[in-house]
Amino acid sequence: MRILVLGGDGYLGWPTALHLSRAGYEVGVADNFARRGYDLEMGVDSLVPIASLHRRVECWEEVSGNRIEMYIGDLTEDEFVHDMVARFRPDTIVHFAEQRSAPYSMVDRKHAVYTQVNNVVGTLNLLYAIADINPSIHLVKLGTMGEYGTPNIDIEEGYIEITHRGRTDVLPFPKQPGSFYHLSKVHDSHNIAFCCRAWGLRSTDLNQGIVYGQSTPETTLHPDLATRFDYDAVFGTVLNRFVIQAAAGEPLTVYGKGGQTRGFLDIRDTLACVELAIRHPADPGEFRVFNQFTETFSVGELAEKVCQAASGSTIVHIDDPRVEMQEHYYRAAHTKLLDLGLLPFLLGDELLADLLAISRAHVDRIELSALQPHVMWRTTSSDISRNPMPERDSTASDHPR
Amino acid sequence: MRILVLGGDGYLGWPTALHLSRAGYEVGVADNFARRGYDLEMGVDSLVPIASLHRRVECWEEVSGNRIEMYIGDLTEDEFVHDMVARFRPDTIVHFAEQRSAPYSMVDRKHAVYTQVNNVVGTLNLLYAIADINPSIHLVKLGTMGEYGTPNIDIEEGYIEITHRGRTDVLPFPKQPGSFYHLSKVHDSHNIAFCCRAWGLRSTDLNQGIVYGQSTPETTLHPDLATRFDYDAVFGTVLNRFVIQAAAGEPLTVYGKGGQTRGFLDIRDTLACVELAIRHPADPGEFRVFNQFTETFSVGELAEKVCQAASGSTIVHIDDPRVEMQEHYYRAAHTKLLDLGLLPFLLGDELLADLLAISRAHVDRIELSALQPHVMWRTTSSDISRNPMPERDSTASDHPR
Repeated sequence: MRILVLGGDGYLGWPTALHLSRAGYEVGVADNFARRGYDLEMGVDSLVPIASLHRRVECWEEVSGNRIEMYIGDLTEDEFVHDMVARFRPDTIVHFAEQRSAPYSMVDRKHAVYTQVNNVVGTLNLLYAIADINPSIHLVKLGTMGEYGTPNIDIEEGYIEITHRGRTDVLPFPKQPGSFYHLSKVHDSHNIAFCCRAWGLRSTDLNQGIVYGQSTPETTLHPDLATRFDYDAVFGTVLNRFVIQAAAGEPLTVYGKGGQTRGFLDIRDTLACVELAIRHPADPGEFRVFNQFTETFSVGELAEKVCQAASGSTIVHIDDPRVEMQEHYYRAAHTKLLDLGLLPFLLGDELLADLLAISRAHVDRIELSALQPHVMWRTTSSDISRNPMPERDSTASDHPR
Repeated sequence: MRILVLGGDGYLGWPTALHLSRAGYEVGVADNFARRGYDLEMGVDSLVPIASLHRRVECWEEVSGNRIEMYIGDLTEDEFVHDMVARFRPDTIVHFAEQRSAPYSMVDRKHAVYTQVNNVVGTLNLLYAIADINPSIHLVKLGTMGEYGTPNIDIEEGYIEITHRGRTDVLPFPKQPGSFYHLSKVHDSHNIAFCCRAWGLRSTDLNQGIVYGQSTPETTLHPDLATRFDYDAVFGTVLNRFVIQAAAGEPLTVYGKGGQTRGFLDIRDTLACVELAIRHPADPGEFRVFNQFTETFSVGELAEKVCQAASGSTIVHIDDPRVEMQEHYYRAAHTKLLDLGLLPFLLGDELLADLLAISRAHVDRIELSALQPHVMWRTTSSDISRNPMPERDSTASDHPR
């Protein structure tokens, strides 16, 4: 089976490509290096040094004997998408290739517009390419649990049966996303669901929780296979950030009360979930939604866990830069991937010790100022660069860099 | 009170501007003439000749003594939006300025991408301008009843109370839009709701039904004040099309079984509803949704009504070019505007006679070929031009013309 991994140079895209290649699939990766560009814009870098994509692919062939095909280009360019899909002839496309940071999307108007245009247009181009070239391609699309927000009822997997004034229907679960990034994923989900209905496409939307961890069985085979490890307040996810703060001897910064509760999963479970979705594809015309996480924690609970693992750490509460409920009900279904056979890596001491060891090994690379949140949800213009160059731009679709 | 009407040169935007000007508001209009450009692209024209916007505004001053300020520009250009809002200092912005045809959005990839980028980016720019310049501006945004699709339960006005596994919440009503155009309105609604929550903006989303009619008390004061009357299969709405087919002695073409049921309203009620929303603004932080229609009809029922009004007409059923249910449950709440005082013009013989008279007066302008649907939902590429120039374009945000 041939699998194309879009965003294959990213935090999760690269380890996913390696995992699938090792599992025996023919793998291609596509990337436009936007993620590395965001680092240049912000003046930060992955805590763990990462090799170029060319070197990564070369190294993987040395280590495993397997070739990974590379496609360098941008999904918002229709011709690139069409030619790539026609040339690689994938059976499955795994689509990670979106701007995936909520704070980045909230920087200012340009970053909001960039995030929504980039994500929505890239996915539209992909849907048209699939419909035109081979409608039986299974699109495995990365969404986010953040699409649902924090309703006061149980969150189901994509759909909910509603009985209302004596009648019943199964409808898309109502969405209350909390940033322009999360909104872009909701837009994608609606667009993809429509294409499944209108054109008979098949797709699985993986509403993923917050991923933690950095090591997978493949990335640890050689330093040049390592995936990125983000610690900055814009792209670093919360557990990774706490661990790096602990390693640097800094207090762990909890936003607001810390009662914000979310679904989480180990990076190795991301790879397993994606493979399960691939091996059990959606039916033609089906828009299937899996909630992809293994446990729920509050931000405060995670901080406590890191404090216990790294003795001597302290916790400080800072003003929440986001607009979100700091204490709320949260219960979300996540049985569909378990039913397909997922055996989760639950969050334990071993994983925390591994993350702490990685962080301590690279402690000299930490820029402490990058850990402080400087994107504020309630304002319309934040500064993420250390070298601000104020400007006002009149074009809508310009890349913000 | 100062009101800016975006899309003020369009079918509804222009009569709305006149209505508000006559009612004593200070009115500005903005337009980029995209709607007139679609006509040029397709080789069709409004059945009723329309004057240029400059002439319209001049004529209105001659007739009424009232000035309307003009802003010529594109909402996807941030600088234009920002400068216009800063200069005009509106208390309310009425936002019609979107690509509003479902078939146009389904022509091909370029038209789908254009529709979503144009509508979503224009509205994002507007939201940022409001937040930056004056967050108390009331945004009255035109949405569509088509955002809801045709669920098997009663449709409520924007929100629905759901009791699920013993808990209850009021959540956004689930959306099942049926074209890339309808999807763009769903994207807008989610984006606006978020900005109300994050920035405290105030907005009313008018989920409008299908509008019929062409005459308003203001547009009939002078021929140069007339609004457009579309009959082509891409921009003509269903009742207007039936009347024009009857006037031309052509059979009325019902798509499929004709059981497709939708909400409808008279163009004069559009003006009344917009004014009611303006006079009773949403609260700061509130994202309010009104379902703006007065009656529901099936397409088949409308065809019967037109046949009765225009004796001698016949009905033919043709393959449905759309992907939609041809027979279904449909019941949608629409009490909020009635509660504010709306006194509807219900569909009757007088309105049909007026439309037939208008159509017969301009029967020599009808291009019969424009009435046949040529955009097919199940294919990814249709031809709407009489002079096709096949090409493949690699840019994402190009305007399709």
